Amino acid sequence: MQNRNANLIMDLYELTMANGYFSIGNDKKTAFDYFYRKNPDNGGFAIFAGLEQVIEYVENLRFKKDDIDYFKSLNVFSDEFLDFLKDFKFRGDIYAFDEGSIIYPQEPILRVVGSPVDAQIIETALLSALNHQSLIATKARRIVKAAAGRTVADFGARRAHNMDAAFYGARAAYIGGVSATATLLAAKEFNIPANGTMAHSWVMYFNDEFEAFKRYALLYPDNAVLLIDTYDVLHSGVPNAVKTQKEILAPLGKKLKGVRIDSGDLAYLSKKVRIALDEAGLNECKIFVSNSLDEYTISSILAQGGAIDGFGVGERLITSKSDPVFGGVYKLAAVEVNGEFTPRIKLSEAVEKMTNPGLKQLWRVYDKSGHAVADLITSADETPDFSKPYRYVDPEKPWEIRYFENCSAKKMLNLVVKDGKRIVSKRSLEEIRNYVKNQLTNEIWEEEQRFENPHKHYVDMSVKYHEMKMSLLKSKNFKQV
Amino acid sequence: MQNRNANLIMDLYELTMANGYFSIGNDKKTAFDYFYRKNPDNGGFAIFAGLEQVIEYVENLRFKKDDIDYFKSLNVFSDEFLDFLKDFKFRGDIYAFDEGSIIYPQEPILRVVGSPVDAQIIETALLSALNHQSLIATKARRIVKAAAGRTVADFGARRAHNMDAAFYGARAAYIGGVSATATLLAAKEFNIPANGTMAHSWVMYFNDEFEAFKRYALLYPDNAVLLIDTYDVLHSGVPNAVKTQKEILAPLGKKLKGVRIDSGDLAYLSKKVRIALDEAGLNECKIFVSNSLDEYTISSILAQGGAIDGFGVGERLITSKSDPVFGGVYKLAAVEVNGEFTPRIKLSEAVEKMTNPGLKQLWRVYDKSGHAVADLITSADETPDFSKPYRYVDPEKPWEIRYFENCSAKKMLNLVVKDGKRIVSKRSLEEIRNYVKNQLTNEIWEEEQRFENPHKHYVDMSVKYHEMKMSLLKSKNFKQV
Repeated sequence: MQNRNANLIMDLYELTMANGYFSIGNDKKTAFDYFYRKNPDNGGFAIFAGLEQVIEYVENLRFKKDDIDYFKSLNVFSDEFLDFLKDFKFRGDIYAFDEGSIIYPQEPILRVVGSPVDAQIIETALLSALNHQSLIATKARRIVKAAAGRTVADFGARRAHNMDAAFYGARAAYIGGVSATATLLAAKEFNIPANGTMAHSWVMYFNDEFEAFKRYALLYPDNAVLLIDTYDVLHSGVPNAVKTQKEILAPLGKKLKGVRIDSGDLAYLSKKVRIALDEAGLNECKIFVSNSLDEYTISSILAQGGAIDGFGVGERLITSKSDPVFGGVYKLAAVEVNGEFTPRIKLSEAVEKMTNPGLKQLWRVYDKSGHAVADLITSADETPDFSKPYRYVDPEKPWEIRYFENCSAKKMLNLVVKDGKRIVSKRSLEEIRNYVKNQLTNEIWEEEQRFENPHKHYVDMSVKYHEMKMSLLKSKNFKQV
Repeated sequence: MQNRNANLIMDLYELTMANGYFSIGNDKKTAFDYFYRKNPDNGGFAIFAGLEQVIEYVENLRFKKDDIDYFKSLNVFSDEFLDFLKDFKFRGDIYAFDEGSIIYPQEPILRVVGSPVDAQIIETALLSALNHQSLIATKARRIVKAAAGRTVADFGARRAHNMDAAFYGARAAYIGGVSATATLLAAKEFNIPANGTMAHSWVMYFNDEFEAFKRYALLYPDNAVLLIDTYDVLHSGVPNAVKTQKEILAPLGKKLKGVRIDSGDLAYLSKKVRIALDEAGLNECKIFVSNSLDEYTISSILAQGGAIDGFGVGERLITSKSDPVFGGVYKLAAVEVNGEFTPRIKLSEAVEKMTNPGLKQLWRVYDKSGHAVADLITSADETPDFSKPYRYVDPEKPWEIRYFENCSAKKMLNLVVKDGKRIVSKRSLEEIRNYVKNQLTNEIWEEEQRFENPHKHYVDMSVKYHEMKMSLLKSKNFKQV
């Protein structure tokens, strides 16, 4: 469990196809796009997270002797290909949005350009890293928004889908705005504030709730948060917490930091507990709650006047329970033919599974107030001129004639890995987290951030790009076959 | 990403409490139970998986210098405790069900006995391992059952909650009955058959579907499964697959193994594809389908006569999308006082969060046909005598007088780790998987296995155990405080 060969988090078919590309020369460059199709929880946006891990992955991807031996045992690869894998390094380029960017469905968020083998075999690990962290960052942001300024701590490790889900999930949750994590490894490695209170086992061990509280308060007089629901919140937990303050902490000149409620009706109990604490003079003692919380339960509890200072959020954050799949995909967009990238498209039976072909750039378009009014897909070689009204196409209403006026645009896809090497410096988690916060405060309309029927962000196309896509679509009409 | 310090997948509070137990001597033994409260997807049972990883974890749990340095930087632990952690090894005992056992809510599935520090600090990792793998094994079994004898392969890595979720998820899915995985690392490390077909990128790369099929068939003439939905299943994919058989494989004396459909209406398309393949003489060519499948969509597709030989199941298996949280918990059950284990109970506001106190044994009770008719909780020192009618208590109807007659019982909790060392040999994954299959075929009533309103398995109590629990409950009545 301590060591893990991340290289082989790879679907078999990545290698069977790579073996195929290798057999025909592996010499034409390809471009693959990462994008997703639907916002989690029917929200208005998602948060792009996990890029740092993708860069680490591609920089370190190597096959060891026992990996090659295993591949050989499958009897599907040529000896030449297995030899080639012995010295394999990823040598492609990666263009990506900054980590922490607000992202929208259908737009290219990351592009890999490289030999077909290079671009193909990183697919599974890239998708797993980006899909997982983008899912949790997006969920965390929703929960933090519902908490309306109160603290939110990640308590999810025990219900996470194993260790990485706890570890990288804590990272993503911090990007999304939670203020602390209980998971020590994530706190240590990513420099996230560590947070924790007390378990029921501590109270049960002493078999006397006051004894348990007393011991804990003496150990942690500056930071004691007492868990008050082991036996009975109002008739045992609160009186014992008050007694702990009066008999143990007050004589030391200390104040009880808080209490935590982990079961029962959190709105009702928190109000009753607040009154009881205030009546006993513990006005500064904070109330923390936990127990299957998410943005929906938190909104409801607060709407009912829950007297709560902070939330511990576990299973529904770390699994994104209400929508646990982030459906990001990685699709071939272009192949080099005679030195030029020619677009490729996937049609499929389902229109929503149709891809945006070709080498593209994504521009975020801002109005004068600095708000993002739309995103714009252009061909990679276009630089839209926003110094005058700029004509674009709404792909859902291509017959309309539309212009951006008095706008500016930011190029979103930028080179981060060149010839297999990182060319941008590693950003701190704090920086990524602040970037998320800044965008949501200053750039993204509040209307896109509400939970119910959020405004749909426009992802428009340049005239040139839209014409290219339409002509490609017409060339792929198979109904006559 | 290659190395990971699994030891620190640990909530901060495990260590703050351990610091507390250490400060008061850490000398009274404790017993903690692992159990869960609700079957996933409202099913009739779950499958216990992940035990092997728990044993590995406790055997290898050590703290390194930089872990200790990090703990010190938090300024909450005593120097003596940090010194103690330098040489810490888990020295407790673990009793557990065999991995792969069918399990039911509320019953003790695993018990840890050890010093409070030993028993406390393994909580988070133990829960994460058991909850995740039990969740996925249970989901996999449901999907395999829905597939009614057709093959099911795990294609989930790209939507898994990061690498471990793909890796251990593949292991758990195999325990639950899938026949293969696409994830190479799991296939290699756990000796699971590897499975894979072809991606849309392969077809798009060549820009000519037949060219792509031809190249693939020449590379893999014995194993070619062609992906036929890149452009148009019926008007392009199938005709090109037939052409590949006739022009490429037939001259080599080979037969096309199969086709895969990854989008559209899988019931409708598979029937049409079957007819087209049969008309062209490709009667042995199999049809595989994928695309957001789970037990519900598979049941529906098969009820509509889908002509399908095998399913590739991804996101809804690897995240257990319809119910992604397995709520297993780890609760203190007893503490040694004057050399004897005295029971501990947690009440909580919610009755379903009340625990079963004390040192317990769990017996599976079989009738003469070998079917499991109930489970029975006794105190750990009871050996029920089934040679004559055995009186037990149904905890939901304690006033009834009930007997097991002509039954036998199997002890389910057995010692697997003693003084921190594994004392049972490692079981192969194949063995665990067969054990699951045998129980579901021979021991577990079909009525407990149906998806809709399954029969609820009884978890009964011995008279002695039930009396102990009731007297403890009465002693904890706080309403008079």
